[in-house]
This record gives sequence, C-alpha cells and structure tokens, in this order.
Amino acid sequence: MTGESRVRVFPGVGLLLMAVSLAAHSASGSRYDVNSDRPGHQPEKYYWRPGPPIKNNDGTWTFQPRTSIGEPMPDMPTRMERMIRKVQFRLVKALEAQETGGKKFQLHRTNRTKGSGESVMYVLQSGDVFEKAGVGVSVARHTLPPKIAQQMRARGKDVDEGSPFISVGISCIIHPRNPMVPAIHFNYRYFEVKGRNGSTQWWFGGGTDLTPYYLDEGDALAFHSTLKKICDKYEKGSYEKFKRNCDSYFTIAHRNETRGIGGIFFDDLTTPDQKLAFAFVKSCAKAVVPLYLPLVRKHKYYKWNSTERKWQLIRRGRYIEFNLIYDRGTKYGLQSTVTIIENVFMAAPPKAIWEYKYEPQAGSREADLMEVLRHPRDWA
Amino acid sequence: MTGESRVRVFPGVGLLLMAVSLAAHSASGSRYDVNSDRPGHQPEKYYWRPGPPIKNNDGTWTFQPRTSIGEPMPDMPTRMERMIRKVQFRLVKALEAQETGGKKFQLHRTNRTKGSGESVMYVLQSGDVFEKAGVGVSVARHTLPPKIAQQMRARGKDVDEGSPFISVGISCIIHPRNPMVPAIHFNYRYFEVKGRNGSTQWWFGGGTDLTPYYLDEGDALAFHSTLKKICDKYEKGSYEKFKRNCDSYFTIAHRNETRGIGGIFFDDLTTPDQKLAFAFVKSCAKAVVPLYLPLVRKHKYYKWNSTERKWQLIRRGRYIEFNLIYDRGTKYGLQSTVTIIENVFMAAPPKAIWEYKYEPQAGSREADLMEVLRHPRDWA
Repeated sequence: MTGESRVRVFPGVGLLLMAVSLAAHSASGSRYDVNSDRPGHQPEKYYWRPGPPIKNNDGTWTFQPRTSIGEPMPDMPTRMERMIRKVQFRLVKALEAQETGGKKFQLHRTNRTKGSGESVMYVLQSGDVFEKAGVGVSVARHTLPPKIAQQMRARGKDVDEGSPFISVGISCIIHPRNPMVPAIHFNYRYFEVKGRNGSTQWWFGGGTDLTPYYLDEGDALAFHSTLKKICDKYEKGSYEKFKRNCDSYFTIAHRNETRGIGGIFFDDLTTPDQKLAFAFVKSCAKAVVPLYLPLVRKHKYYKWNSTERKWQLIRRGRYIEFNLIYDRGTKYGLQSTVTIIENVFMAAPPKAIWEYKYEPQAGSREADLMEVLRHPRDWA
Repeated sequence: MTGESRVRVFPGVGLLLMAVSLAAHSASGSRYDVNSDRPGHQPEKYYWRPGPPIKNNDGTWTFQPRTSIGEPMPDMPTRMERMIRKVQFRLVKALEAQETGGKKFQLHRTNRTKGSGESVMYVLQSGDVFEKAGVGVSVARHTLPPKIAQQMRARGKDVDEGSPFISVGISCIIHPRNPMVPAIHFNYRYFEVKGRNGSTQWWFGGGTDLTPYYLDEGDALAFHSTLKKICDKYEKGSYEKFKRNCDSYFTIAHRNETRGIGGIFFDDLTTPDQKLAFAFVKSCAKAVVPLYLPLVRKHKYYKWNSTERKWQLIRRGRYIEFNLIYDRGTKYGLQSTVTIIENVFMAAPPKAIWEYKYEPQAGSREADLMEVLRHPRDWA
C-alpha cells in the first residue's frame, strides 16, 4: 500500500502532509534541501519508518503515510520533524500513563497562514499528577522579522531582514501538582536560513533542565549523569560546557539565583557535521522519557502539606519571572510575526503566588534548595 | 516643644529625619534646593504641619517632629515626601478600616546605603478583603546608572551616566480578594537631576488606573469623571491626553488588550510651573481614597463563585505579564542599582493562574469586560 492510498482512507492526513512537504518557501520558491549544496551529492537510499499516529480529540487516529521504499533521504527539516513528532508521541503516552485519574492530553493543531507551517500542541490541564503539561511541535516557514534578523547578526549569522527561514522544534514544560515531583523543561530545534549570498546556514539548539521544589540529591545526580553520558558520546567536555551554559542561561539575575538545578543548554550547534549534530540532538530528545518518568513514579504518591504547596507556588512565581524577563524563547515568540500567542504562554505555570519578603526558614528543606539555586553544583 | 526635643523622646525619629534631611548628595556635595537657582529668591515663610505619625509593627508610633514656625519653605523633594507620606498614612488607615477580620498593614522600612534614601513600605497580605495591598514611599538619592541615563537622554533630558539625582515617589497596588472589587494602582513621583552643565532638571510623573474583573459601568463613569474634574482644574484638555496616555501605556501588546479600564497617566510634567504641577500631583494623590474606597464598600460583600474567582486569577496573570514585559517602573527597578528587589515585586498579584486557550463565553460578563479591554472607551 502506498502513501497515497492511505491519504484517501484518512482524509486528515492530507493537510498534515501538505504542511510537512511544503518545504518550498513561498518567498524564495526554492526547495529547502540541505544536500543540494554538497558537490557530487547522490540521493541516499534510506528506509524510514512512518511517524507515529496522531490521536485526535474525538478518539480517532490520524496515521502518517509510509514512504515508498527507496525514496531519497528526506531533508533535515523533515527528518527533524519526524524525530520530534515521535518523541512527542512517546512522551504524551508516557505521561498519560502516569495520570491516576485518567486525564488525557488534548490536541491543539494550528495551521499557520498557508504554507508557513503548523503547530501541533498537546496540552494536559488539571490532571491529578500533572497540573499542566504541554508538549508542542512547531514548524514555521517565513521570513525573518527585523529584530530577530538583527539579533542573529549579533550572533554572527550572515542574515538579513526578510531572509527566508525554516524552524522545526519541540518544546515542553511539565508542571506537576505534587511539590515533591520536579518540573521539567526541554526544547530542541533546528533552524535553517538562506543568507544574503544565497548560502544556507543551519544550526541546532536546545536543552533539558530540571526544576525541583525539594532537592533529592540522588535524583539530581542521576539526572545529570545521564545527560553527561549522552554528551560524552557526542564530544568529550561538551557536558561541562552545556551545563555551565544552562546554569548561566537560567539565572534569574534580579534574584541572584537560578531557576532550577540545571541540565544542558546549547545553541548554534553545527559541529562536527549535520548528521552527527542531529544524532546528538536526537539522543537528547529521546532521553527525556527515561530521565523524567522515574522521578514522577518515585515521588508522585508522596504526601505534601500546605507549606510545601506554598513553596512550590512561590518558586513557580520565580519561574514566570524568568520566562517573561529573560527567556530568549519567550522574547522570540513575542517578536515573531507567526507566533501563536497561547503557545508562548503554554510554559507559564498553572498557578503561582507572590508573597512579599517570603524567606525560607534557616535549615529547612526550602533553604537547602535555595543553597543549590544560589551556588549551582557540578552534579556529574 | 521643638523638633529636636521630640527626637529625644522618640529615638526612631532620628533615623528618619537624617534620611530626609540628607538632601546633600554624597557625590556632588551640593544641597538639593530647587530654589537656589532662582535669581533673587527669598526664603518663603511657610507654616507647615508635621507629617503623619508612623505606626510601628510593635504597636507604638513614631511621630515626625513639628518644624518651627517661620522656618523657610522646604525644598520640593521634602514637600513631595511630606505630601505622599500623608497620602500613604490616610490610605493605610482607610484600607485597614475596610478589613473585616482586623488584618493590619505591616511596616517594612529599609534604609538604603548611607545617605542614599530610604523606603517605607506598608504591606497587608492575606486579608479578608485585600488579598495583597502595598503602599510604598521611596526616596532615593544616587547617581544615574548608564542604562537609565541613556533612556532619559532619549526622552530629551540633558543628563549623563553618573549625574546625581533624587527621586521621591509613592507607589501602590491593591489586589482585593473578591473578584467584584476592582484592583487599583497608582504612583506619583518627583524626579530631580543635576544635568551636564550643572543645571537642575525636575519633573513629575504618575497616574492612577483601575483594573476591574467585572465591569460596573457606573463605577467606571464615576472613577473617570472624578479624574477629569481634577485634570480640568489643572489644564483644560489634560484629562483627554492623560487618559489616552494611560490606555496606550497599559496595553498588553502581545494580547492586543489593555490591562484595565485606564485612568490617567503622565510623565515629564513640568508645566505651567513647579508649584502648580505639584498642586496637580497632590490633588491626584489625595483623590485616591475618595476614588477607590466607595468601590470597596459597594462590592466587598458581593457573593462570588469559583468561575468568577478563576476569571480574576486569569486576569491577574495578564497583570503580571504586563508588569514584567512592558512596565517601565519594573524595568527601572530591575536596572537601578539602589533597588530593593522585593519592592519591585510588591505589585505582583498574590496569586495568578494561566490556562491554555481560556476564552470567556460569548455574551458572558467576562466577555463584556474583554470588549472594553480590547476597545478602550472614553468614559468621561
């Protein structure tokens, strides 16, 4: 059975396929094929499996078609999208399985203006275990707005206002209800832009970081050790660099503390080549379920009292302070012209409080956490 | 009994007096006397009354000394501080009188580094009527940090990094518990800075604005009419200008809506002269109690349900979005070197929620409010 015949069976697929295959940018008219620049490039034979089915809100499933065997290797935006869709699918299933009350994710799919990509956002709200969790895959094809082009030039990119780009990324934030379960955030993205002289520039960015409200040293150690193993396979010394990046990026400067206990964080990743950089990003993204689910399983039945809940809500206030004042992703979202604003605020905590001059008692578990947030540790 | 003898009786006064009278800036060594630049200026006889007593947390009172009759008119920073202290005192008493459970304001007094001013902050938290209310008077004497000097130059001020300044202001935000009672915010400030060529530049700024969660058209009309009357006395047409300013300033651009239903907002106010500009600011500040207290009395016993509470908390989420992303006061606070960070976040709502893609039902009272926030009205 070919891809085409499946499209007829499941009409929803047509739309999805269109968005995915519309790699041709409307402004430039050229197909985004990262291989086209390589001299002597021959289409690679690649037997790839279909992406995961997408569960619709009415309980039906949308299947993605199987590509015919022997079709050339898809371009990097397509490969990245396939990969993060799978990660999204597995994470959504894994989180739903943890919900004790049977709460399910809701799918919010948004097509941007014709041909400029789409957003596939799964959101679970008011669960027993997860107070708010969102896992979104976003594909955007557009031209750079002035401010973003300027920021990219400041980072050394040869781009201009109006340069056509494609960005493909996954972004996720999980706010558990139980203060003993840490919150987690990750995002991985691929960015490709046609520069001034027509050359294609691309890079990967992203990271995974943990935000506990109560510190479990064993958890922190395990979390960072796993990340270190993944980084070591990619490049010796990269974990140390990415951990430092992470601590420095997630600093709430006006409070002189970090948002959480860190993880890894990188941007403008192009080394050693596209294939290996992609392999690294893939292993990071695939590691989220085995990194996080054990922490949920371990802590989700722990009892908590109103003091602990209050502390969690205060820390969530700091979370939103960071996101709105410092986060580049949020700033990008607010400046971009193809933003779906609700998706920018998907990361906002479900509930937060601010109390004037709240200070944890000396020697308390809350103070223990603050110690680590004020003096980030090398965990692995 | 002279001021001095009182200082002996109440030792707390000494500190306060010192801070107030330390108008001499440590860097410049010159006394801040706005009159000193006026040719032929004669000290004016002015019989002024003492400032209001300050209630300490232990239940005792700190009295401010009476100035001897016949003493010269104090300089504008001192007059401004006296005036806003009185406004602060009256508002604190008026709000406490509304509390049904007897909750009281707590005083948080902070002396900045020696000679650089102080902050007198009254905060009431977890009241029955007011979930969080803060009224702060702040006096700061320092030199301009680079970023702030730059912003002021962009606004046409002849200042430099390191120019000595004094700022005296009152700032207040009240977050009531009952969603039927609107939140209110106001701040009034006087700013004086020694320019590059040694000349003194000064201006007033501030405003009062209302943030209801449910629209009461009669309230809105009364609120704006009173402000219009005050403005009309000052300058014909100024209300219209300040109301437009207010709507445009309190716009949450990424949501395409305003934070509340507006009020007045102005900055760089120097006309027609210092005395009349001060008189205007004084009448605005003194109007807060008669503007707001009737709304509290009218609505505080209204019943509310969980839907209305949720709507209030969602709107409070928008409140913090505005404050952290757009508010100049917050930005100034985060950039300033003499900031007390907890005071910057005093304005943060006590509790806020974010729900993905929450939309009020068409025709509901929530939708009615949104209509006004999306299309600001001329109320008076």
